[in-house]
Amino acid sequence: SSMEQHNDGSRKFIEFPFVSAPHKDLMVGLVSTVENRLGSQLHTCTLPLDVQHYQNPSGSAQASLYIRSGIEPSLVDFILGSWIHCDLPTGGALNITSLSAYLSASTDAPNFLFELIRSSPTSVVLIVDLPPRKDLVLYPDYLQTFYENTQLESRRQSLAKLPEVQPYFSSSLYIRCLSSPTAIMVRIETKAGQPERMEEIIKDHVDPIAKEVLGIWLDQCACGKREVGETEKACLEKRDKLIKSQTVEIDIGSSFPRLFGPEVAERVVGVIREFYGV
Amino acid sequence: SSMEQHNDGSRKFIEFPFVSAPHKDLMVGLVSTVENRLGSQLHTCTLPLDVQHYQNPSGSAQASLYIRSGIEPSLVDFILGSWIHCDLPTGGALNITSLSAYLSASTDAPNFLFELIRSSPTSVVLIVDLPPRKDLVLYPDYLQTFYENTQLESRRQSLAKLPEVQPYFSSSLYIRCLSSPTAIMVRIETKAGQPERMEEIIKDHVDPIAKEVLGIWLDQCACGKREVGETEKACLEKRDKLIKSQTVEIDIGSSFPRLFGPEVAERVVGVIREFYGV
Repeated sequence: SSMEQHNDGSRKFIEFPFVSAPHKDLMVGLVSTVENRLGSQLHTCTLPLDVQHYQNPSGSAQASLYIRSGIEPSLVDFILGSWIHCDLPTGGALNITSLSAYLSASTDAPNFLFELIRSSPTSVVLIVDLPPRKDLVLYPDYLQTFYENTQLESRRQSLAKLPEVQPYFSSSLYIRCLSSPTAIMVRIETKAGQPERMEEIIKDHVDPIAKEVLGIWLDQCACGKREVGETEKACLEKRDKLIKSQTVEIDIGSSFPRLFGPEVAERVVGVIREFYGV
Repeated sequence: SSMEQHNDGSRKFIEFPFVSAPHKDLMVGLVSTVENRLGSQLHTCTLPLDVQHYQNPSGSAQASLYIRSGIEPSLVDFILGSWIHCDLPTGGALNITSLSAYLSASTDAPNFLFELIRSSPTSVVLIVDLPPRKDLVLYPDYLQTFYENTQLESRRQSLAKLPEVQPYFSSSLYIRCLSSPTAIMVRIETKAGQPERMEEIIKDHVDPIAKEVLGIWLDQCACGKREVGETEKACLEKRDKLIKSQTVEIDIGSSFPRLFGPEVAERVVGVIREFYGV
């Protein structure tokens, strides 16, 4: 059963102890959907315990990391889940939860990315995307297969219609380049006194859309066969690797030492680099 | 002088007879800036007269096209200016003005694109970009040179701050893929009774920003030397050509027959295809 696939490594991760019920339900739903569908293709999480759950020396920031690698000949390279909780000097807290899935170079199909960054009860940045693994300008057929035929744009638009939703632009231009044209990258802000409206948006809008996009990814990408020649495979490996090395540098490479101190950051980022192969 | 470079071909184009004074000033300013700087590298416009200015059988839609090719060894392939005016069944008019510049495969530097689509006195879609000619994911140095070091993002942000400005998403996913991460792609809407506020935004915000972006393009792209090897040159040619052929198909290939009737559309699109080499 799906529960048996969870070794000890999943316990702390799947608790999501610091987020609201709808936010936790959403994350647990995404993780269990992936594991129910792909679990038999995945190794259990064998990360060291002090990487599965870690914190900074003062305890004001803590986090969990969960990684399961694909078992050959699975198309899945690995799935990576994480949450980060960090007390803010202003009294509130920052909570980030994410689930991403990376495919191997045996397929050129897009990866999956979900991230919810909650900097206050009324403010969220949401990212849901199937990041492409090829230059979409050069491969219109690929664009059509994974982005047009799947109607991903309709999901982006349905969320964009909410008055609380505004487009979000990453401060990193490189990160912007990684997203697909149907990426959901939005800031959701509810009125200062309305955290319950945010919970409603997460439950009624973010949750179903995230599950739909994940379903598309599972059907069309993780489980769909694609022909990939040797030259193309080499290109995919090069591109995947470059993206991972740039992402580590831009994203966690700078924020983790700040959040968790240099020692913990080095330990955790080292493990992530290992899985990324960079 | 710059006026002598205008042969007869430029006269109808540079009139911009259907747009407001600030809109015309902006366009004339952009065209004359390009021609003052690059004019000596460009052939005069030798398009047939019935392509320089054309209209549909009923006269409800008319337009002008202006193309000047680069003279070897200029890095400029060609510059293309156009305006389109079209009476709307609702009583108003649609006015599109654009200026784009395409570089040759002797450089990999970005192209220039400016487009102002005015569907009513209070509603505009604005596109200002230096469309990249390489996959930015694979070339972070290129991203840094042309997009980070040039501070293009600050121009995008200064416009995005205006309350009348909202991000604009092209209905074509392929067109979205062509833009840079600092592309200005916005919809500007002023209140129904405030066309004069739109004129103010065009004069005080769009005009200076468009000129700054054009200045960056002239300094860093049109006049900057880049090393391009033979293999890379072939890649650039392939990518440039694919973009042009897709763009013709998506954009003018479908709208021109509708606007101008099949015969006129065929004539004009044929000429554009010739310059595009597709």
